[in-house]
Parts: sequence; C-alpha cells; structure tokens
Amino acid sequence: MQKITILIHCEDQKAIIASVTNYIASIDGNIIYLDQHVDADENVFFMRLECEFSAKNWDLEAIKADFREKLANPFKMSWEIYTQEYKPRMALFVSKYDHCLYDILGRYSAGELPLEIPLIVSNHEDLKVVADRFSIPFHHVPFTKEIKEEGEKQQIDLLQQYEIDFIVLARYMQIIPPKLIALYKNKIINIHHSFLPAFPGAKPYHSAFKRGVKIIGATSHYVTEGLDEGPIIEQDIARVSHSHSIEDFIMKGRDLERMVLARAIKLHAERKTMVYDNKTVVFS
Amino acid sequence: MQKITILIHCEDQKAIIASVTNYIASIDGNIIYLDQHVDADENVFFMRLECEFSAKNWDLEAIKADFREKLANPFKMSWEIYTQEYKPRMALFVSKYDHCLYDILGRYSAGELPLEIPLIVSNHEDLKVVADRFSIPFHHVPFTKEIKEEGEKQQIDLLQQYEIDFIVLARYMQIIPPKLIALYKNKIINIHHSFLPAFPGAKPYHSAFKRGVKIIGATSHYVTEGLDEGPIIEQDIARVSHSHSIEDFIMKGRDLERMVLARAIKLHAERKTMVYDNKTVVFS
Amino acid sequence: MQKITILIHCEDQKAIIASVTNYIASIDGNIIYLDQHVDADENVFFMRLECEFSAKNWDLEAIKADFREKLANPFKMSWEIYTQEYKPRMALFVSKYDHCLYDILGRYSAGELPLEIPLIVSNHEDLKVVADRFSIPFHHVPFTKEIKEEGEKQQIDLLQQYEIDFIVLARYMQIIPPKLIALYKNKIINIHHSFLPAFPGAKPYHSAFKRGVKIIGATSHYVTEGLDEGPIIEQDIARVSHSHSIEDFIMKGRDLERMVLARAIKLHAERKTMVYDNKTVVFS
Amino acid sequence: MQKITILIHCEDQKAIIASVTNYIASIDGNIIYLDQHVDADENVFFMRLECEFSAKNWDLEAIKADFREKLANPFKMSWEIYTQEYKPRMALFVSKYDHCLYDILGRYSAGELPLEIPLIVSNHEDLKVVADRFSIPFHHVPFTKEIKEEGEKQQIDLLQQYEIDFIVLARYMQIIPPKLIALYKNKIINIHHSFLPAFPGAKPYHSAFKRGVKIIGATSHYVTEGLDEGPIIEQDIARVSHSHSIEDFIMKGRDLERMVLARAIKLHAERKTMVYDNKTVVFS
Repeated sequence: MQKITILIHCEDQKAIIASVTNYIASIDGNIIYLDQHVDADENVFFMRLECEFSAKNWDLEAIKADFREKLANPFKMSWEIYTQEYKPRMALFVSKYDHCLYDILGRYSAGELPLEIPLIVSNHEDLKVVADRFSIPFHHVPFTKEIKEEGEKQQIDLLQQYEIDFIVLARYMQIIPPKLIALYKNKIINIHHSFLPAFPGAKPYHSAFKRGVKIIGATSHYVTEGLDEGPIIEQDIARVSHSHSIEDFIMKGRDLERMVLARAIKLHAERKTMVYDNKTVVFS
Repeated sequence: MQKITILIHCEDQKAIIASVTNYIASIDGNIIYLDQHVDADENVFFMRLECEFSAKNWDLEAIKADFREKLANPFKMSWEIYTQEYKPRMALFVSKYDHCLYDILGRYSAGELPLEIPLIVSNHEDLKVVADRFSIPFHHVPFTKEIKEEGEKQQIDLLQQYEIDFIVLARYMQIIPPKLIALYKNKIINIHHSFLPAFPGAKPYHSAFKRGVKIIGATSHYVTEGLDEGPIIEQDIARVSHSHSIEDFIMKGRDLERMVLARAIKLHAERKTMVYDNKTVVFS
Repeated sequence: MQKITILIHCEDQKAIIASVTNYIASIDGNIIYLDQHVDADENVFFMRLECEFSAKNWDLEAIKADFREKLANPFKMSWEIYTQEYKPRMALFVSKYDHCLYDILGRYSAGELPLEIPLIVSNHEDLKVVADRFSIPFHHVPFTKEIKEEGEKQQIDLLQQYEIDFIVLARYMQIIPPKLIALYKNKIINIHHSFLPAFPGAKPYHSAFKRGVKIIGATSHYVTEGLDEGPIIEQDIARVSHSHSIEDFIMKGRDLERMVLARAIKLHAERKTMVYDNKTVVFS
Repeated sequence: MQKITILIHCEDQKAIIASVTNYIASIDGNIIYLDQHVDADENVFFMRLECEFSAKNWDLEAIKADFREKLANPFKMSWEIYTQEYKPRMALFVSKYDHCLYDILGRYSAGELPLEIPLIVSNHEDLKVVADRFSIPFHHVPFTKEIKEEGEKQQIDLLQQYEIDFIVLARYMQIIPPKLIALYKNKIINIHHSFLPAFPGAKPYHSAFKRGVKIIGATSHYVTEGLDEGPIIEQDIARVSHSHSIEDFIMKGRDLERMVLARAIKLHAERKTMVYDNKTVVFS
C-alpha cells in the first residue's frame, strides 16, 4: 500500500469536501483520515486527508497533475501532497543548553520521530560531544553581530548541502537572520521558555518568578521576524508555588521545553500543521 | 438559517464521505462541521456533520426521506438527524448529595446547557428545597429493594409523562432497574467518583486513600447492567498527596464530579457522542 | 477541643521555629499542621500553624498576650491568630455575569465554604433574582464615573453595616476605588479571565483568540491599584485549538473562572494565604 | 557550608518539632527547609529537615551520636541523616525498551540528576549500544525461570561490587527475586505503564484501549512482592480519545513513562520519599 497526506487551504466554497472525496474515490483511494476546519471570520477552508492506494494504481505524478487540474485550479487551492515514505530532513540549531538536544536525539534514536537529522549547527563547540555520541554531523558556525553575514552564508550553505527541509532551534540563543527566515518560511520551529504572550524575550523564568505566577509554561512556535511573535504550535504548563526558587522554575521549565518542542517537531514532521494569518491549524 | 446535525455509523466502505457530502451539496446545504472516525479493528465508520440550510430550501421530512433512500439504505447506515432548535429533555435523578445538583441547575439557569430540565426525581425528600429554589418539578419516588417494582413503575410513568429524552444520575445512590436501562439505552448518564476501571462500586475515595494513589479521578459513563462498566464519556483527575485526608479526597472529588458530569451532559445534549461496542466516539 | 490557626512573618532569624513550637508545647497545645517558608532573596520567614487545645486549657486572650510578649515582640513578627469557630464574612460584588455567582452560592449552600455570605452588592439589578433564590440580601449600588463618590460611600457603609471581612469580585465590571482598596488591603479577591500577566484589561478571550494561543487561563488575585497587577492567588488553564471560536473560549473560560475563583475564596477563608512584596505564599 | 537532610518518623508525640528544632539551634544549624506530616489514623509523625552548618562547627559523627542520644532514643525514632555531598549510586535494569533509558541517561548527562549511575544491567544485549554511547558499564545478566538462581546471584554480586544504593527498573521485563527485594527494601523503583490500581500486570495499554478510557496513565512505585502493588511514588496521565489506536496509546504512554520515572528517581535521590504502611510520604 502507498499512503499520502494531502493538505489544502482555500477560500471557503460549497462542495469542496464532496469534490475532493469524489476524486479520491474515483482513483480507488481509500480515505483513512479526514479532518477539516473553516475559519468563519476569514472565510478560509482547511483540510487534511490521509489516503491509501494499492500499489498497482499508484502514480504520484499523475495524481498530482490530476489534482491540480480538477481540484486545485477550479477551487484556487493552496495544496501539498506528501508521501509517507519520504522522511523530512531536519537541522538542529543549538548553543550551549543540552537538555532539548539530548531529548530530541534520544527520541530520534528510539525511533519515535518520522524524520532524518543529518545536521547539527551550533554557534559554540560545547555540544559537539553530544552530537558525536549520536554520530550526527556537527558544524560549528560562529555567529555574532560582527560576522553576521558570514555566519548566515555558512548556515544557508550547510542547509542546502544537507538538503534540509526544516529547522529546529533547540534553545539556540541567536537571532535568526531575516533572509534565513524568508527561505524557511513556517519551517523554523523555536521553543520559548514561557507561556507566550507572557514574558517574551530574555529571562522569562526570572520575570515569572518576580511576578509571582502560580503556573509557568513553554511555547513552541514558527519563527517570524517579530521576536517570539510567530504562529504558536504547542504550549504546555507546570504548577509552581511560593516554595520554588528561580532555579526550581528553570528545572521544571526544562521538562516543559523538552516536551513542548518534541510535540511540535512531531506535529510538523507528520504534516499536521498549517499556518494562516499568524496562527496555526493543528490537526489531531 | 436552519441547522441540523447528522450522526452516522455503518460498516466502513469506499465513498461514504463523498456520497454524503455530495448529497448535502445537491440540496444546497452548507457543511459547517464534519468529523469522521474509522474503527479499523471493527471496520466501522462513524461520522458527525453539521449543515446549514437557508430557510427557503428547508423541508426536514423530505431530507430524511431522501437520506434514507439515497444513503442510509444503500450503505446500511445507522443514522440520526437532529434539528438545532429542539432541545432534548433531561430528567435528573438525585438522592442526598447536592453538589452536582447545584452545579447543573446553576449552569442551566446561566444558560450554558442546550437542554430542558422538566423533572427531578429522588428517592429522598431532602433535595426538594433545591429544586424549589430553581422552580423545577420535584417528585419523590421511594425506591428500596422491597418496593422496587412500584418504584420502577412510578419512574417510568414520570419519564413518559414529562417526555424525557435522557436521564442524568447526579449522585443517585440506587441501582437502575434493567427495564429502565433497556428503555433508555445509552441515554442514562452516571457520574462515578473514581478513575474507572479503578475503584468501581462503593466508597472509591476510601479505597483510593488506602492504596495511596497520587491522583484521584471521576468518570461519567452511560449506564449498562454491569455496575460502573458502561461506555465512558469523560474522565478527569486531580492530584492528591500524603497530606490529604479522606475528607480532602472527597472535597476535591466533588469538583471533579461536578466538572466531569457537566461536560458529559453537554456532550450528550449536543449530540457529540456515539456508542459502539461498549465504547464512545466523542466528537469535538 | 479548640483549634486555632497562627500566621507569622518576620525577618528570618535562627530559632524561630524552635521558639514557637516550644511555646505551643509549653501551654499543652498539639501542633496538627506546620508549614514554613523562607524567602531567601528577601530574607523573610513565613509560618502557618494549626494547633489544638483541650477546652480546659483554653484562654485565647491569654495566649494572644503571651504570644505578643514572648514571641512577636522579640522576633519583631507580623502575626495573626484565628479561631476555627469564627467564619469570615464575605461580600460578593457582581454585575451581570451570573456563572461565578451561581457557582459560589451553590458551593455555599452545599456547605463547602467555611464562611458567611451576608451581602451581595451590584451595580445592576439583573442578578437580584439569583440572590433571592438563595435568600441572600442584595443591594443595588449604582456606580458610574459620574456618581463614583456616592457609590463608594454606599459600598463602604454596607460593608461596615454587615461587618464584612473580605470582598469577592465575581466578575464585577467596575474599577474599585482606591479608598476601598486601602480599607480592604489584601482582602479583595478578583477573578481575571486570562492567564496573567498575559492579556490584562478588557476582552482577554478576544486577544487570546487573535494571538492563536493553544491554552487559555484564569487568574484570581488580590486587588491593588494597578489593574490586574495584584498578588496572584491561583491560576488554572484549559486547552484550546484552532477549532474553537471566541464563543468557545468564553464558554471554556467560564469553567476556569468558576474553579479558580472558588479555590481562591476557599484558600483565603481558610487563612492559607499570606501576601508579601506583591506575591502570595499559599500554604497547602 | 555543609548541608544535611534529616528524615524522621516515629509515633506522634508532643514536642517532637520543638525538640528537634531546639537541638538544631543548639548546634548553630540553620533550618532551611522543614516539612512534617502526621498520619492521624496511624498516629505516626514524619518530618524532613534540611539544615546548613558553617564548616567550622561541622562534625557529622558527633551530630549523629548526639541525635541518637538526645532525640532518636527518647522519641523512639526511625531516622536517617544524609549529607548533600554524597550522591547515591543507582543501578539501571533494562530489557529491550530504550525510551526510558535514553531519557534517564540524557538527564544524567545534562546534569539534572543528583546521583551516580555506575551500572546498567540487562537480561538482553540489545541496549549495550546505548550504554556505550554514554560510557556506562553494561552487564548482560541472562534471567529466565530456568537460570533464576544464577541470575539472581550475578545481579547481587554486581550490585555489591558497584556499591549500589538503589535500583531503577526502566521497563525491565522480569520479575525481581524476593531475595533482591528484601536486600533493597523500598529501594527498587519500577515504572508501570498504567494508572494503578487500574490495569496491573501485562499489556495495560491494550486493556485501557479495550475499556475505552479517556485518560491513560503511568505509575512509579517501590517494588514489593505483590505485582504492581508497592507504595506509589508518582503518577501522571494523558488524555486519549476514540481517534487513538493502541499504537497511539503506547506512544503517548512513552512520554508518561519517561516523565513519571524521572520524577520518581529525582524524588528518591533527593531523599524526599518515606514509606509507611505501603504508602509514601513525598515531601515537596
């Protein structure tokens, strides 16, 4: 069996679901998952389908051509078709914090993530030892204000050389240059260690402690030019109390960061996220 | 605009979604919600749709006749169509605990529940004062082993007289007779004060305390003949610690019971639950 | 048996716990609960004790005098002693939203809250019907910019007449005058319908929806002059997704508001909160 | 500064707290944490203290002798004193599942766990590669019914050779022999992949799926001779729905298992757990 995932969004119109499901039926596909969402305010329709085809009917390029002509053009759809067998290629950007890196590489090694990790990039050498333990190529790309352009160029060269599909900032402590954001639009995932939009920017645990909150959080989001303002993919929280120090907040936060980032990576790699109007649709 | 909800389940077959959505499109309906589920083990297909029709096209009986002929019969569907304007009529069965009763009547009075409550039945007189506060008819129907048949008859008479669609046991401390269960199959909702299947039967908070659990729970389920064994609709939990007494468990549990029962009532009244094979499909 | 609760805070010093527990032992008291906290940054010590005395040893005024002389003065303590038999008197301020009001009165009637509610104050007449159902005195005190001083005077007169110990704003939609805040310092509890410090001020659910958050929250806090900036008592959250409308946020939020406000009321009435440096210590 | 943790339990009596805190004050110790609990049903008192001493007053053996004579003997206490500088030595027992192992070794390498891991024992060779990545000695000790005694002997020899303080079963799929349980009483931590006492024994995710629960859980507990019946240390849960397959349960469960086991390990290593009457007191 061949399995594909189809993502669609377009202006909401009558008979979209009927037309798409008719088409799948007409080529003997079997729909094993369908979820759709209408943003009533914006009048936008979103759909995610998973279909199976028996191998003998299988011609991906023919399906794509058909889909374009019969569905995408008439309905003016934005659309993508992914095969299950292709695993997206993810680059990890890290600095000095190692907890998210260990967590991601542990999950990857345990076979939990449907993706490839051909590349780790860092502005420091500290975490090379971790990359080595898991036998993943590690590239030290220094990045400071002074050598921003050189760093950016090196990063982009590496991403192209390794044919990277999306980037994960696993507590990478540098601003991403606009050019890279533009090249990987809605394909760079960051983990911020607060419950956004509370406490954007630096030292959110310190701010949370000072404010005396009873719950802390972490937020994974796609990177846009506005700092910590991109579309939110996933959030989670943990209870704290007066008895916890800033160090306790940071330690509890590490668990949140690991978990929330891992979920966002999985959702993205499984093609379950769509971005519209600085918000995400996250299919289950 | 007229709005209907359609629930379908049948053996999984090709082209069900296409056929149903085609039909809705053919009568100028607009699908505003569609969710479906395939139980791959049992090969059963479930779907819930909400559709809107402009008033001029609106003929519910014609739609039902059409649906039966064009869809339900060919696909051998079990199906139901509900209009949004009809509010299901709910009977509350209570004994002496008042916390769930206050919560439900408070929500009802605050306009949060899409249903009517024409009737409260109790095997004690204690809670008549609560029913009176909210001006809801209260009937005392004694129910003990000795007068079981008489009690059962009175209950069924009241349910018929008040044209009750479904029953909620808001901490009602009596076994429901099999005849009543059969009459209201998958239409009697109970709240059990444990995280089922842990601690079924009597005094679950005492058992939880004795076992030293770190989390307690509550479970709402449809009533079947097996005690606390019916299809689970909703569950939730609360953290406890060694510092909590049985009384603390009970007090924390009251919040769980209120919340979990209120959610189950809302899901049922909004036609978001389907039962199959002693499990529920709960659409979002 | 007589039971008292003692709350203490003072500069952190050696031997505070030993001195206090020695004293309790010396008068044949039995400590049934002791929790303490040291704010290491501010060097402040906090303690909460519950003690039991057999009736024959019981002389509250003598204990207070002793405590002042032997402990409070030498250690320069801020301190309070409460008897369990006195129930604090709470005023409810409401406007038009009824869900928190129903919830609080339901819990009160069900015997869950260790307090008295002798008074409901509102700037509208709408909720008189709810107060009447529960037979609680309701006073309509109009309050607008134009008649602010007159409103404030009426409020304070009522609070004094009914000997009110603390005030709960159950979705009361007016600013509290500074004079009232000063009179009831750390004794006015508000419920804000967001996860503070995110989304302070008006229409937080609308802002949360626009930002595309995946979790919404509610926050109970003591009222200070800064809008939504007072010491946080309790917070909780609920998951939301792209599939939820603003109306869904509001409906889910009602459950959060009810729950978080009820918990804060209970903590305050049980003397489990202490305020320091715009933060709370909340004993379990 | 030297820091010690004191754990005490004994029959509840008057003046215990006063006596202990007096003693600490008398030797110029500074109490930085004190929590106590009274099991009113069993009349047992539990206390955990952390104290700091300036280096010049520091004589651990003298403190222990004093403590025994002045406090432990008169009050008939069970007691332990730990220094912060000693890190307990933990052995990991694994079989073929690698997700908990990766998680623990990742946290260990990231410096989050206050313990040493000198030894990994497995009844299979599969996970040697993981141990090697983290440079931790791995011993293959075959263990089947037939060679139970030989296996048990090898295990105990290794535990003694490596001076192991406590054992963690990170999804180790073999029964622990009674002799080993007796040697490490309340010092063997297991992770069970259900919300105990629901679904003890084999294949709990399959049972949970069949029952149609809406929440799954994981439980860490000390190992006793009764299967999955030992004192519970920590539990947590995750929501599931009809849309999740058994494979989804298992995948979501892996996150629970990792998290709940990591928390239990940390609590044990930080001396925050006490066992009494098949239940745990877990200090915060």
